[in-house]
Parts: sequence; structure tokens; C-alpha cells
Amino acid sequence: MFADRVIEAARRLGPLCVGIDPHPGRVPELFGGDTPKGLAAWGMAVVDAAAGRAAAVKPQAGLFERLGPEGMAALQVVCERARAAGLIVIADAKRGDIGSTARGYADAWLDETAPFAAEALTVNPYMGLDTLEPGLAACEATGRGLAVLVRTSNPGAADFQSLDCGGEPLFLHVARALAPAAGRLKGETGWSGLMLVTGATAPQEARAIRALAPEALFLVPGYGAQGAGVDEALSGFVPGPAGREGGLVNASRAVTFPKAAEGVSGYRAWQAAITEAIETAQAALKAGAASGL
Amino acid sequence: MFADRVIEAARRLGPLCVGIDPHPGRVPELFGGDTPKGLAAWGMAVVDAAAGRAAAVKPQAGLFERLGPEGMAALQVVCERARAAGLIVIADAKRGDIGSTARGYADAWLDETAPFAAEALTVNPYMGLDTLEPGLAACEATGRGLAVLVRTSNPGAADFQSLDCGGEPLFLHVARALAPAAGRLKGETGWSGLMLVTGATAPQEARAIRALAPEALFLVPGYGAQGAGVDEALSGFVPGPAGREGGLVNASRAVTFPKAAEGVSGYRAWQAAITEAIETAQAALKAGAASGL
Repeated sequence: MFADRVIEAARRLGPLCVGIDPHPGRVPELFGGDTPKGLAAWGMAVVDAAAGRAAAVKPQAGLFERLGPEGMAALQVVCERARAAGLIVIADAKRGDIGSTARGYADAWLDETAPFAAEALTVNPYMGLDTLEPGLAACEATGRGLAVLVRTSNPGAADFQSLDCGGEPLFLHVARALAPAAGRLKGETGWSGLMLVTGATAPQEARAIRALAPEALFLVPGYGAQGAGVDEALSGFVPGPAGREGGLVNASRAVTFPKAAEGVSGYRAWQAAITEAIETAQAALKAGAASGL
Repeated sequence: MFADRVIEAARRLGPLCVGIDPHPGRVPELFGGDTPKGLAAWGMAVVDAAAGRAAAVKPQAGLFERLGPEGMAALQVVCERARAAGLIVIADAKRGDIGSTARGYADAWLDETAPFAAEALTVNPYMGLDTLEPGLAACEATGRGLAVLVRTSNPGAADFQSLDCGGEPLFLHVARALAPAAGRLKGETGWSGLMLVTGATAPQEARAIRALAPEALFLVPGYGAQGAGVDEALSGFVPGPAGREGGLVNASRAVTFPKAAEGVSGYRAWQAAITEAIETAQAALKAGAASGL
């Protein structure tokens, strides 16, 4: 089951998830720059640096899709390289649609024969529980995971997610409504592969969601470049055998575009900068998880 | 401006938008069946049947994405054919992400040089107003449109969209919050290219949204196969020079997989069945728009 693979890897290596976000103009010339080939080469190099150092990678679909079908083909090879390297692949595509089309997205990302070889997919709950059902069914059949947006990390997250709905913000209604789904993707460790996306920039909200969803793994964006620190990122975590646990904390820009990698012209120097950034971020998260016990 | 092109075409031809939804197993063998080539050939044939008979087409991204990058390449050629045929192309991808990634989706679908040549993109508002900003900015620059999910047509739409938030359902909060954005995409006709997705299956909700958003064009799914009739589909429309107006009504299965097209083996018989289904749906909508004055 997805949940067991995530928590086992997080206990062994730490909770870091490496975001693979090829922002326009940021992919080094060394890999071919802002082209489909450049995205593929750079993404595979990030995968190689993350392998053995992080539990998971999270490629950002929109930043590949901007280069059209060839960009999506680059995403495809990055996902394949990551799975071959033993990394858990969470496709950050934030999909969502009515039943028959949601089935199309499940076919694309979550089935055994899916063209994009992800082990989990991020999805948007706005359209309702029935729109999550095809993804959930695919995950039950294949042992994969689904990460549902609950309280995101961006400044505008509060616009609708925090609206008061009968004494409780919308995001808590969403978290509560997902409890039956969480039960369906529960692994042997007791954790569920129905992940909840809870931004590191909203630690109080993360604790409130944790109180409602004790089994759900959290997928935590917003750590690092978006301004949240280790304590905020781990605020929804709970004591476990190897320190606080309960999800993955994503870092993208801080580990894939670190200062030390700026302007380097050789692959070895780039690789050294990236592996060091990944190890530093992972060590900080592990120390935070240990000290919070 | 997108809004003016939509309303001009709807006044001239009627409000029908032809949904291009290649459901698994439904694309006729005559075109190559459920393969990227089949999807491209079938989608282009639907475009040819819609040209001159409907204002717009709405390809469903998820049903192309399920075939991987090659499926997305099929979507690309369908969009190009539609624009060359003078049809307005609304890409139904329901994207949404934080600012930097939302910019990637705008690059993919809405910019002058976007690989997927759409004139409007459907987006999900759950993550907040800042996540809509890159798409809006692209639309301001290029005269394109953005269609925001407000009250969808599926049975589970009410799960979150209809939650009572301080005396008003969530979907009305969303509609109200979009008013400044609607103003930014307003055309010379007074209509705005900030479309609101309002399901035909919820006519009362559509009227409530119209009261709050008098300028916004509606994109109405759920007509036909999802159970709503002409009156329900037009419930958010208002009197105009050529009958009730105020948006586009999408039909997919009813016009692209009609009974009369089942089992036909030749292109001409298929084409005759599809053009007749499109003309019948358009005539019903036009009659409804005229009788409601």
C-alpha cells in the first residue's frame, strides 16, 4: 500500500519530498535550458540527486505542460526515472472533474498501465466527493495514493477555504467529508494513502485538520521558498517510532535551485550543490521531527 | 475580446457549444478507435461537423490526457483545426494551482504562443483568487477568456459548493468574489469573458448566480446526457436582441455519440448523423431562447 511505502521511507530517510518544478528560465543551460529535452535531462538529474536521500519526488505538471505534448513527454521520462530509482512519485497535477472525465485522469495517472507513472496524484475537491471516486477506486485497485487539496499554502488560500460554514471553516468540512475515503486507503501501519494537502504556511489549520483526520498522511507544501520553517511544516505531525511523523514535506526551489548551484557550468558542481541542498533540508526536517518528541 | 466573439456567434448561430469528449471505447473504429490517431481524426471530424453550426467547441482535456503525451498531441491538432474553422475553442481542463505554477498553465493554454491553441480555459477556484491571477492577466493581454467553476452539474456538486457560509452558499461567495475579475474581461457588448460554469442541472442556483453576476457569460454543462432540458439550461439567460442570451450551453454525448451514429461504417453516414444531432440540439436551444422572451 502507498501509505506504508511513504511512512517506511520517511522513517528511514526523513520526511523530505523533492519538488521538481521547472520554472520558466530556471532550468540550467547545462541541461539544455527551457526546452522539453532540457526539462527531461534536468528532471532526471534531480531524481538522481534525490535517490537514496529523499522518500519522494513531486513533479509539478503545469510547469511541464507549458511546453505542450513534448513537455508532458519530459514529465513522463522523469516519472519513470524516479520510479526506477525507488523514489515515490507524487504527480502534482491538481486534477478534478465529473465522474466520466475523472476516470480519464485516473487512467492517465493512477492505473497500472497509466502513461504517466505516478504513485499518487493531487486532486481538487471543489466539485464534490463523486468527482474523487474514480481516483479512489483506481488507488484501491493498484495500491496507489490520492492527495486532496484541503488547506493550501498560497496567500489566497483563505479566500474560500477559510470561509466560515456553520461555525467551521470550509477546509475542515472537506477534511471531515474525506474520512470514509481515508478508511479505504488505510495501510498496515494504520496510516492512509488518502493524503491531505495542508500548507506549511498555516500551522494552526494543520493541527485542526490533524485532530479530525488522525490517519491521513499530510502532503505539506510551502516549506522553504514560501516562507514556512521546520516547526510550521511539521505542525500536523504526531509522535512515531523514529520521531514525529505523518506525512511528507515538500521543498522545491530551495533544493533544486539553491544559491550554490547558480552559474555553475559543470554537471559535477551542479550535482554537489543539489545533493548538499537536499541533505541540508532533510537534516533540518529530521532534527525538527526528533526534537518535537 | 473573447466575450464579444462568443455573444456575436451565439446570436448568429445559437448558444450550442459542442463538447469533444473521447470517452474510452466510444471513438468509432472508422476513425481509428481509442488511439491517439483515432482521437485526432474523430475530434477533427466533430470540428468539421460543428463548423458553421455551433459557436464553440469544448474539448475535454482529461479524456485526451489518458492516452499520454500522444493523446495531448491529438488534443493539440483538434484545437488547431477548430480555430482554423472559425470555432471558439474552450479547453475544458479545470486547471488550478498557486501563482508560479498557474503561470505555467496560462503559458500552456492562454498565451499567444501557447502550445494548446485555446481561446478560453476552465479553471477551479478552490485555491483562491491569487491562483486565478496569471490566467486573468494572460486573458487581458490576449483577449482570451477564463471559465471559472462556480456551481457544477454533477450530483456531488452540492457537497461543498452548496455549504451554507454565513447565510449564503459557497458558490455565491465565489461568484461574488469574481466580480472585479469579470470587470477586467468586459467586452464592447457589455458581456465579460470571465465565464462562470453553472450546471444546467441546477437552474435555481443559476438564477441566483445571474442576479449577482449580470455581466458574466455562463458556460452551462449538464444539458442532454446529464438530464437537464432546454429550460433548465437557459435558466441563467436574459433577454437580448436575438432572444434570451448570456452564455453557451454545452452538449457532448447527445451530439457526438447520437443513436443514429451507432454502428455506421462509413464517414458520410457518420457525418450526416452528427450534423443532424448538432442541428437538432441547436434548434431546440434557439427555440427555447426565443420562447422565453
